[in-house]
Amino acid sequence: MNFLRRIVESNRFQNFITAVIAINAIILGLETSPTVMNAAGSVLHVLDQVAVAIFVIELVMKLALYRLAFFKRAWNVFDFTIVAITLMPAGQGVSVLRALRILRAFRLISTVPSMRKVVEALMRAIPGMISVLTLLSLVFYVSAVMATKLFGEGFPDWFGTIGESLYSLFQIMTLESWSMGIVRPVMESYPLAWLFFVPFILVTTFAVLNLFIAIVVDAMSTHVDVEETQTRDVIELDHQEIMTELRALRSEMSKLANARNDHPQDVPSDQNKTSTPS
Amino acid sequence: MNFLRRIVESNRFQNFITAVIAINAIILGLETSPTVMNAAGSVLHVLDQVAVAIFVIELVMKLALYRLAFFKRAWNVFDFTIVAITLMPAGQGVSVLRALRILRAFRLISTVPSMRKVVEALMRAIPGMISVLTLLSLVFYVSAVMATKLFGEGFPDWFGTIGESLYSLFQIMTLESWSMGIVRPVMESYPLAWLFFVPFILVTTFAVLNLFIAIVVDAMSTHVDVEETQTRDVIELDHQEIMTELRALRSEMSKLANARNDHPQDVPSDQNKTSTPS
Amino acid sequence: MNFLRRIVESNRFQNFITAVIAINAIILGLETSPTVMNAAGSVLHVLDQVAVAIFVIELVMKLALYRLAFFKRAWNVFDFTIVAITLMPAGQGVSVLRALRILRAFRLISTVPSMRKVVEALMRAIPGMISVLTLLSLVFYVSAVMATKLFGEGFPDWFGTIGESLYSLFQIMTLESWSMGIVRPVMESYPLAWLFFVPFILVTTFAVLNLFIAIVVDAMSTHVDVEETQTRDVIELDHQEIMTELRALRSEMSKLANARNDHPQDVPSDQNKTSTPS
Amino acid sequence: MNFLRRIVESNRFQNFITAVIAINAIILGLETSPTVMNAAGSVLHVLDQVAVAIFVIELVMKLALYRLAFFKRAWNVFDFTIVAITLMPAGQGVSVLRALRILRAFRLISTVPSMRKVVEALMRAIPGMISVLTLLSLVFYVSAVMATKLFGEGFPDWFGTIGESLYSLFQIMTLESWSMGIVRPVMESYPLAWLFFVPFILVTTFAVLNLFIAIVVDAMSTHVDVEETQTRDVIELDHQEIMTELRALRSEMSKLANARNDHPQDVPSDQNKTSTPS
Repeated sequence: MNFLRRIVESNRFQNFITAVIAINAIILGLETSPTVMNAAGSVLHVLDQVAVAIFVIELVMKLALYRLAFFKRAWNVFDFTIVAITLMPAGQGVSVLRALRILRAFRLISTVPSMRKVVEALMRAIPGMISVLTLLSLVFYVSAVMATKLFGEGFPDWFGTIGESLYSLFQIMTLESWSMGIVRPVMESYPLAWLFFVPFILVTTFAVLNLFIAIVVDAMSTHVDVEETQTRDVIELDHQEIMTELRALRSEMSKLANARNDHPQDVPSDQNKTSTPS
Repeated sequence: MNFLRRIVESNRFQNFITAVIAINAIILGLETSPTVMNAAGSVLHVLDQVAVAIFVIELVMKLALYRLAFFKRAWNVFDFTIVAITLMPAGQGVSVLRALRILRAFRLISTVPSMRKVVEALMRAIPGMISVLTLLSLVFYVSAVMATKLFGEGFPDWFGTIGESLYSLFQIMTLESWSMGIVRPVMESYPLAWLFFVPFILVTTFAVLNLFIAIVVDAMSTHVDVEETQTRDVIELDHQEIMTELRALRSEMSKLANARNDHPQDVPSDQNKTSTPS
Repeated sequence: MNFLRRIVESNRFQNFITAVIAINAIILGLETSPTVMNAAGSVLHVLDQVAVAIFVIELVMKLALYRLAFFKRAWNVFDFTIVAITLMPAGQGVSVLRALRILRAFRLISTVPSMRKVVEALMRAIPGMISVLTLLSLVFYVSAVMATKLFGEGFPDWFGTIGESLYSLFQIMTLESWSMGIVRPVMESYPLAWLFFVPFILVTTFAVLNLFIAIVVDAMSTHVDVEETQTRDVIELDHQEIMTELRALRSEMSKLANARNDHPQDVPSDQNKTSTPS
Repeated sequence: MNFLRRIVESNRFQNFITAVIAINAIILGLETSPTVMNAAGSVLHVLDQVAVAIFVIELVMKLALYRLAFFKRAWNVFDFTIVAITLMPAGQGVSVLRALRILRAFRLISTVPSMRKVVEALMRAIPGMISVLTLLSLVFYVSAVMATKLFGEGFPDWFGTIGESLYSLFQIMTLESWSMGIVRPVMESYPLAWLFFVPFILVTTFAVLNLFIAIVVDAMSTHVDVEETQTRDVIELDHQEIMTELRALRSEMSKLANARNDHPQDVPSDQNKTSTPS
């Protein structure tokens, strides 16, 4: 088991897998060229099979080593899912499944640490966006139902079903051909259609832009907080040092004062003052 | 009355209303599908009527409980308006009113606290935008009048009236088909039309982007202010503590000095100095 | 003269002019409607003439009062230019000059203080943008010359002259129909045209976005600086107070020590130490 | 050699070269106008040759002066490359090479200090973007391979090869005609195509916007750090001053106390206390 761990967790093994992923991605890219396929199609096919075999062996080794703990790490689940998709029996949707094989290239994200960090950073922005995304989903659902009921009969291609309406509204939110392509034709049948679409555009683009504003403000706030906390720590540390020194000074001064008071011959006429040691 | 209050303000009642809104939204969504309507149209219709009845009863209960104070809360006015729209007598514009029923789903915003917070946060950004929005409105009005006078005769579909011009200018501001769709055709009749449209695009997009910049800067400024105020509070508190200690020290020292001065046999030759207690 | 000043600088006069501008803007808007013009065209025309007369009298009063100092204020020059455009003798370009009359509505910006502040704020962002705008102009000029030489013959409508190229490149920078409308057709004749257009899009959108980033960062930096300077002022003030107190303490202590040292009978055996007063 | 250095590094020489670049840029712009070419084509050609000669002489002088150290400065390499492109023997691609001559105008960036600063500032933003750009490249490559395999046969113009797919995906990322132009036609053959394109748009626009958010946050963070470090320096300096004063006070007080203790006749009954000098 220790032998397995030494292999799996070695840098060499990681680099080897990364290289296989990269080469496999290039091979799958070359497969899209008919010229290359005619010249060396069978070689590429064999190389692809070898790569798949390596990925399967890698996963089996890791599963044997970590057992169920393997699935506790999100990136392992990511790797496992991608390889599993690749191995799915190709039935009817053959061409789609063959196309999905290139998804293996995304395993570079989990094997190259710098890529992993970027994706993790992008992911961290998502929780702060959930509340606005939920609101946006509600606006989309309500707008899609309304658009289907209002314009569905007249424009079945764009607003025939809720699904089609959602797609058309997404297109409108991205501002792509919203007016010349969709709203002007709709307004020829329903002249007041702009009362629905213009507010929709204003609300959704405002919400989307606030999503990104939230990310900026959140990232900046975190940075400012860290800096200010550091400054306050410096202030507190300095303050402690000063207070320690001041208290020491004062206790010495008390001693000095007490020393005087202990000698009646020194301060005979000042007993009313010494009776109030601050 | 207390009994009514206990019901209306209970979490169970809130959750029940939220559930009814959600289910009602799904029903209204299903109504857009002809297949579903053929199979279970009458059931859906009854369920919708039940939901409306529940909303009306809810409102009546709240109005009985809070009376006119009910309308002091903006969210209550929002709920009331949405339910009122639903109950409007369906005359000519039947299909439009039927379509507006899905607006009830927006009541989720007022019943789910996290959604309410998001909308309130988005609303808070609006006051800071009013001045730029006013300027933008003026630019739109002036541009619409100019466009109508300049291009109205040649292109009545786009710039025939002020209303049509406002819509076309909004489309141009969103950059949708502004050149290939609008300005290039206009330039074939009026070759200098770009002198009107290009500055319009530059000014309005600059203004809109400044709107969003203002939101970012405002949110960040508030955060920085809060942090800096906290830091200054820490500084002030520390400062008070040090000054208290220092003043105590000094008063003790004064006592010490006075004690000496009170004994002429101790400091006989230093009377000029002790006569100036700083 | 004082009488004139009292009138011109009174709030009533300002509000009156503002009202005239607003009413005039509405009149000019109504003039775009054929229905309104048929019904009350001559009345609107007379009202417009009255408004022009009021603006001219206002300017004459201000010029009589402030003389050449009038032109030192940018907003006065703005008002003067707008009224002057209105009064230009209508020769050939009658319709254009008539359309420009609505520009008078922009005088609201100079008479309403809140609008003036917004425009001044937007203007303040411009100096920080000049260097990037200069670079952008250079990129546009170079790209326009190249596009004219490369694609001018094949596509004279889009790239026939430097002016047409500049317009087309501006359209491409706004991403409007850049690919389906311009670059794909161009690529049918010049397959490598994307080598020119894609980098152009990347460079110009990157530059434009940096313009806005610069505005955000600049506004935020100014705010942070103000806050930090305040914090440092608090720190310095507190520090001065502490140091004053400490110095007072020390001078009192020195006095105390000196008082002792002045009495040889008190500290006879400690002369080596007292010879080094820190 | 000193003579050469005095010339090359003089302001006059720099300004002269800048002027030649600017004039040359104008000449190359004028060459695009057939009217101007008919009137003064030969003069412009001669002037262009003169400008080229001046640039070559300038480079030779700098090379003679700095030798290989010349190439250590990035801007020199930039100048050298631009002039070298100009001098390339015009073979087949004559018109392209002639068009590239206007690139010389970019030398203004290296000769005008304010432009150089802007470009250097823009360049500084790039390292922080590399990790996201790498991720974006991976997403583009994987998506291009998938799009080619899935839609290549049906839509060879858009997704026939990886290159064409990359171009189409870039167009889709800029949101230009993505729906009406590309995805709706594709969906007529492959109804589920939106499952590929909508996530692609969401992921790539999210990544691109994060690029710009990263620039804003980075610029702001740097600014905040500088300010906070300054504040902390002020705090530390003040703290040092206070501590120095306090230590001096304490040492004086110790002396005072010791002075007393050194005189047994002064404090005879307090020996237990003096045995613990704080």
